[in-house]
Amino acid sequence: MDRIEILDSTLRDGAQGEGISFSVADKLEVVRTLDGLCVDIIEAGNPASNPKDLDFFAEIKGLKLVNSRLAAFGSTRRKGERASEDSGLKSLLSADTGTVVIFGKSWDFHAVKILGATLDENLLMIEESIAFMKASGRRVVYDAEHFFDGYKANPEYALRTVAAAAKGGAECLVLCDTNGGSLPDLVRELTKKVVAEFGIPVGIHAHNDSGLAVANSLAAVDGGALQVQGTLAGFGERCGNANLSTIVPNIRIKLGKECLSEESLAAITVSTRRVAEIANISFDEGMPYVGRRAFAHKGGMHIDAVMKDPVSFEHVEPPLVGNDRRFLASEVGGRSVILDKIRKIDPSLGKDSPSVALIVERLKEMERDGYQFEGADGSLELLMRKATGKYKPFFQLGHYRTIGEQPVADKAHCATALVKVEVEGVSEISAAEGDGPVNALDLALRKALERFYPNIASMRLVDFKVRVIDSGATASAVRVLIESADQSGAWTTVGVSTDIIEASWIALVDSIEYKLIKDIERRWKAYV
Amino acid sequence: MDRIEILDSTLRDGAQGEGISFSVADKLEVVRTLDGLCVDIIEAGNPASNPKDLDFFAEIKGLKLVNSRLAAFGSTRRKGERASEDSGLKSLLSADTGTVVIFGKSWDFHAVKILGATLDENLLMIEESIAFMKASGRRVVYDAEHFFDGYKANPEYALRTVAAAAKGGAECLVLCDTNGGSLPDLVRELTKKVVAEFGIPVGIHAHNDSGLAVANSLAAVDGGALQVQGTLAGFGERCGNANLSTIVPNIRIKLGKECLSEESLAAITVSTRRVAEIANISFDEGMPYVGRRAFAHKGGMHIDAVMKDPVSFEHVEPPLVGNDRRFLASEVGGRSVILDKIRKIDPSLGKDSPSVALIVERLKEMERDGYQFEGADGSLELLMRKATGKYKPFFQLGHYRTIGEQPVADKAHCATALVKVEVEGVSEISAAEGDGPVNALDLALRKALERFYPNIASMRLVDFKVRVIDSGATASAVRVLIESADQSGAWTTVGVSTDIIEASWIALVDSIEYKLIKDIERRWKAYV
Repeated sequence: MDRIEILDSTLRDGAQGEGISFSVADKLEVVRTLDGLCVDIIEAGNPASNPKDLDFFAEIKGLKLVNSRLAAFGSTRRKGERASEDSGLKSLLSADTGTVVIFGKSWDFHAVKILGATLDENLLMIEESIAFMKASGRRVVYDAEHFFDGYKANPEYALRTVAAAAKGGAECLVLCDTNGGSLPDLVRELTKKVVAEFGIPVGIHAHNDSGLAVANSLAAVDGGALQVQGTLAGFGERCGNANLSTIVPNIRIKLGKECLSEESLAAITVSTRRVAEIANISFDEGMPYVGRRAFAHKGGMHIDAVMKDPVSFEHVEPPLVGNDRRFLASEVGGRSVILDKIRKIDPSLGKDSPSVALIVERLKEMERDGYQFEGADGSLELLMRKATGKYKPFFQLGHYRTIGEQPVADKAHCATALVKVEVEGVSEISAAEGDGPVNALDLALRKALERFYPNIASMRLVDFKVRVIDSGATASAVRVLIESADQSGAWTTVGVSTDIIEASWIALVDSIEYKLIKDIERRWKAYV
Repeated sequence: MDRIEILDSTLRDGAQGEGISFSVADKLEVVRTLDGLCVDIIEAGNPASNPKDLDFFAEIKGLKLVNSRLAAFGSTRRKGERASEDSGLKSLLSADTGTVVIFGKSWDFHAVKILGATLDENLLMIEESIAFMKASGRRVVYDAEHFFDGYKANPEYALRTVAAAAKGGAECLVLCDTNGGSLPDLVRELTKKVVAEFGIPVGIHAHNDSGLAVANSLAAVDGGALQVQGTLAGFGERCGNANLSTIVPNIRIKLGKECLSEESLAAITVSTRRVAEIANISFDEGMPYVGRRAFAHKGGMHIDAVMKDPVSFEHVEPPLVGNDRRFLASEVGGRSVILDKIRKIDPSLGKDSPSVALIVERLKEMERDGYQFEGADGSLELLMRKATGKYKPFFQLGHYRTIGEQPVADKAHCATALVKVEVEGVSEISAAEGDGPVNALDLALRKALERFYPNIASMRLVDFKVRVIDSGATASAVRVLIESADQSGAWTTVGVSTDIIEASWIALVDSIEYKLIKDIERRWKAYV
């Protein structure tokens, strides 16, 4: 059976979404997440249009991808330029990826009116650009921009542009519904036509402007497309690109075709959430398959029926996609997932142990307060340890105080913090300056604790994210996520408070305690 | 040409969505909004399952609907009960609506396993319930719950349930994809079958669990369905009901069929936002047609092309659905967008004016520092005013100081701020407490300025967002977005600093200055 290949464009087309801006470190983390999900091709940036993307492609050479191919994206050469002299194609080569994606114009109107090229010149631009990349040792995926709109305007010419790409040596001809306005029947029919005509794998690239990106992607697959392009969480310009976290489960479960793997499917919820978290975009919890509400039952009759048999109101089993069933009215839910994690700390615990009930209760309470543990493995483990008695605090806070001031002569030291801690009866007070109160507090706390726990020096803060939970004024609760790392790994912790400094403090303390526990665990393992 | 009828279920199925809870006053306001939009049928509640809905139906008798029919929703009679004695049907009658929607079971598994009825009894329950409502003077829409899943399990029986509804006297047979798991081809095929078999209008009721509710609704219309059920903003249990704000434009513009009216289409953006606001649900700005991002262009090449001709990257004209085109000012956007915005402040400026170059230069600098203006129209206008000389500061900062402390007895006052400002030579110093340093600073600043500008009292902070820009430790730069509103509108401002308090300060000052400028502008317009 034919396998459907997945190309994720979160870092390229997804980055065109309003409010999305990835740092180089963010991009590397997205690549790691997608590679872990075994996405076939990761389209990671457009080095010619965005100088930050060039830095990224330089950085990523140090990262060994296990499962995915990396691709850079760029346009066909300029009109009147030789392909080998074109600065855009040169940038694309300099990204040094084995695969490149080249887009060109299929709509006569775009070729003439937007590029100002003649129709014949546009065909040459497509063919020569691809041929040049092939000759430079690249595998080339060709994106036929506006293919469906172009076909409606001038069918013969639209097909000639695709023929030019085939002649140039493209390994896949991707039909793009760039404006997101096409209907599934047309998409299926034209996909069939291109599949029949060229004997080269065909792909689909859909946008969601009519709410049909998923349907159009499936229609293309039904018409014979073998590659689906989209973004894992549906990010993208305007209404977004085709949402892969919906499409992949649909292809595997509904169409029964090979696509990624069973393991990838089971990891799709956590991976999608991770990508949204890195982008610092609040997650649409109503998203099919991966949203928190995707299997949440509220109506009383529905809950009763689902308890009798889940198939009554669920189209697929939630664990298939790594998600959980939730009952909103009754207070049951998610216990098996929690149990799984608790057993890693204490294998002796069973489903009915009181500490399991305690943890479930505590989690619900904290989620009501605005906590979310999906991205905060470190804090979740600490919470479980506290509830199962496998925890002893490393220090006591006496008090802290932060002072921020403007204007100041030295901006890097506009805030000061003072922290007093106690470790086994011994007090330590320390102070530090920083370029903000959280920074100053972090530095002061480490300084106070390093006297007792010198290995704290080997950990560093990798990322710090803030999200306001309830809209409304500056007094809303704030959730702070802190990612820390040492030579052995990375972990994330979370804190919630209406006071951003206190929220940061909670996450900071968790991050240090988690580090100290892991160090002890590792040392212990050397003796057993 | 056949007209497609729209049934909105925001107040019934939509109210099953997580986090949605309408008061009676909310419901009346939603009805007014939908009536204003000329929705054909407003399904407003289930009086048997929800006592609040009975109050509502009593209240609404005083409200004269101009364009819409009101419908109450309920289930078929219980097994073993006479229809005329059934408490559910009696409640349904007491709602006193001219139209009722009755749902019954089409899936043999549900009839037997969930209701515990025999297959024949279930058929009688359907037929008799409808016949009773008809005899009581009601028009009856019949919702065939789980029709598609039922058909897959037992095609012959599923059709017999629909036949029972036809025999009972239903005016419309609505095929429901209750679990949201069906694919468009099946939906179209079965709709065709039922249309051909019964000679009664057929409807479609889709859910979005596979991301296909819009596609399934359109497939049914293509198969001959004349009624589409859904919710205006896509609210509903799990992943939501079919989104009518996407479907209505698709039916009118893409399928070219009659549905609501041209005026309704032009009002669909504002009506959908209104419903979301009444529900107090944060609006998905990526929603097709009606979202703020639906016609927002960020990529530089896209912006240039849309300026040449909007059809290049827009599938429909935004005013058709009452929405606006937006050009996002971003590092990937171009100078032409900026010019467009500058001209609103100073129409005399041309593309080559030195202040335009100055603004573009300044924007680039600030974007390098981590500013983003795509979501911060208020700060962008202030920046342009500063560069074109159309700006005069409203006050000078003397200094501010914030103090945060833990532990404290009163968590709501864990921070204090002190602010000194000067307005035209007059100084004012003020202090305030808050539940975090930013909150305290906001309060202290307003307190100091209200003496000089009392109209500040009419503005409020609506939202506060924080984003860390460069990953890496707590010393990373932070971007704060503040959304403010008064009786005339809303605006967003931005601040960037490594110190979150200073970043908030910058955005706060912008938000107040923007408010003061707009007030003066409005007052001035009354004189010109």
